[in-house]
Amino acid sequence: MRDALVAAAFRLFLERGYEQTTVDDIVALAGVGRRSFFRYFPSKEDVVFPDHERCLADMTAFLAASGGEHEPVRRVCDAARLVLLMYAENPSFSVQRYRLTKKVPGLRAYELSVVWRYERALAEYLRGRFHDRPGGDLQADVIAAAVVAAHNNALRSWLRSDGQGDASATVDHALAYVQSAFGAPLATPAPTARPAFPALPSSPAAPGEEPQEDVVVVVSRRGAPLWRVVQEIETAFGRD
Amino acid sequence: MRDALVAAAFRLFLERGYEQTTVDDIVALAGVGRRSFFRYFPSKEDVVFPDHERCLADMTAFLAASGGEHEPVRRVCDAARLVLLMYAENPSFSVQRYRLTKKVPGLRAYELSVVWRYERALAEYLRGRFHDRPGGDLQADVIAAAVVAAHNNALRSWLRSDGQGDASATVDHALAYVQSAFGAPLATPAPTARPAFPALPSSPAAPGEEPQEDVVVVVSRRGAPLWRVVQEIETAFGRD
Repeated sequence: MRDALVAAAFRLFLERGYEQTTVDDIVALAGVGRRSFFRYFPSKEDVVFPDHERCLADMTAFLAASGGEHEPVRRVCDAARLVLLMYAENPSFSVQRYRLTKKVPGLRAYELSVVWRYERALAEYLRGRFHDRPGGDLQADVIAAAVVAAHNNALRSWLRSDGQGDASATVDHALAYVQSAFGAPLATPAPTARPAFPALPSSPAAPGEEPQEDVVVVVSRRGAPLWRVVQEIETAFGRD
Repeated sequence: MRDALVAAAFRLFLERGYEQTTVDDIVALAGVGRRSFFRYFPSKEDVVFPDHERCLADMTAFLAASGGEHEPVRRVCDAARLVLLMYAENPSFSVQRYRLTKKVPGLRAYELSVVWRYERALAEYLRGRFHDRPGGDLQADVIAAAVVAAHNNALRSWLRSDGQGDASATVDHALAYVQSAFGAPLATPAPTARPAFPALPSSPAAPGEEPQEDVVVVVSRRGAPLWRVVQEIETAFGRD
C-alpha cells in the first residue's frame, strides 16, 4: 500500500504538477482512504521522499555500530554512501524526484531539512570520536559539512545525467577529495608527534631512543596548490 | 517604520510565542497597517531575519568586486565574516533570535534556506575562480560548505554564550581551520608541477634547466594525523 501511494502520488505530480495535486487526489487514485495515507506519511512532502527516514535510521545505526578501529573520516564517508545507495536503487524514480524538487520551492526546503539531519548525524558521530581533541566539535561540524557537500555534488551530477553513468565512482571520487583534505590517520597513533620543520629524513634509532617509524618526505614547489600537495601525501600514505 | 515593526514583532514573539502572534497583532502594536508590514516583509518569517537580504546582497557585491589578486579561499572566508558582523552589530537582538529560532521548527527551516543561499553565493564565486581546475566545481562546493559550517559553529558558540566574548576571534579561529585544510596557494602558479615521491630536496638549476623555486620539505611519522601534517605545510608556506 505504501508503494502504491508513492506511485499514485508521482503519477499525479508529473501529470498535474505538485501544487495542483491534493492528498485526496492521491488516495482516490490509489484506491485507499486518507487515514491510510497519513499512517505512512505525515504530509504531502513526505511522500516525495519516502525512504529518507529509513535511510537516516540506517545511517545512525551504521555509525552507532562503529568501533575505535574505524578511521572516523572514512567512516562518515561510508555512512554518506548509504544515501547514494538509496538513490541508486531506483534511478528513474530518483531522477523524476530530482526534477520535481527543482521546480517546487516547498520541496526544496523539505530537502534542505533532510540534508541537515544527515549532516547532524555525521557531525554527532564525529564529535564523539573527536571529543578529546581541542577544537573537536569544530572539526566534526566542518568535516560533516564537507562530506555532505561532496556527496551531494556527485549525486546531483549523476541525477543531471539522468541516472546514467557510475554513481558510485562519482561519489567515491568526490569523497576522496574530502579525505585528502581532512586526512585519515593510519591505525598507529602518534599523539605527541609534531613534525619538526625544517627536518631531516629519519635515521635509525640510536640506542636508548624510541624507534622511528617510517617517514614520508614530500617535496613541493612553493607555488604548488595545497590540494596537490595533500593528494601527494595521500598517495604516499597509500590512502587511496 | 521597518525598525518599529521588527521591535513590535519581537516584543510579541517573546511575550506570547511566535506561533501565537499574527501579523495583525504586530501591526496593531506598531500602529501601522498590514500593507506597510508586507511592503517590508514578504511573510512573518522574514521579520525574524530582517537583515539577511541586505547581507546576502553585500556578500554578493563583495565577491563580485574580487580580483585575481585575492586568494579564493581567503576571500570566501572574508565574505563569511560579513554575516558575523551583521550578528555582532546587535548582540542582544541576535541572542533573542537564536533562542526563538531554536524553539520554532518553521524558523529553523527558514534559517536553513538562508544558510543555503549564503553557501551558494560562496560556491558560485569559487566555481568561477576554479573554472579551469579539474574538479573545480566539486572543490568549490566542498570549500563553501566547510566555510559556512566553520562560521556557523563559531557563531552558535558565541550566541550560546549570550553574545559575550570576542565573536571575531572565535570565527577567525574556526575559519583558520578551513584554510589549513584547503590551503591558500601563493600567487606563483605551478600548473604542471607534480611533486615526485620519493624526491630529493631541490638543488640549484643546472645550466639549461628551468630554475627551481623554493621547496618545502615536510617530514612526518607515518602515523601522524593528516591535519597535523597539513598544518605544518601551512606554517611552512607562511599561510597563517
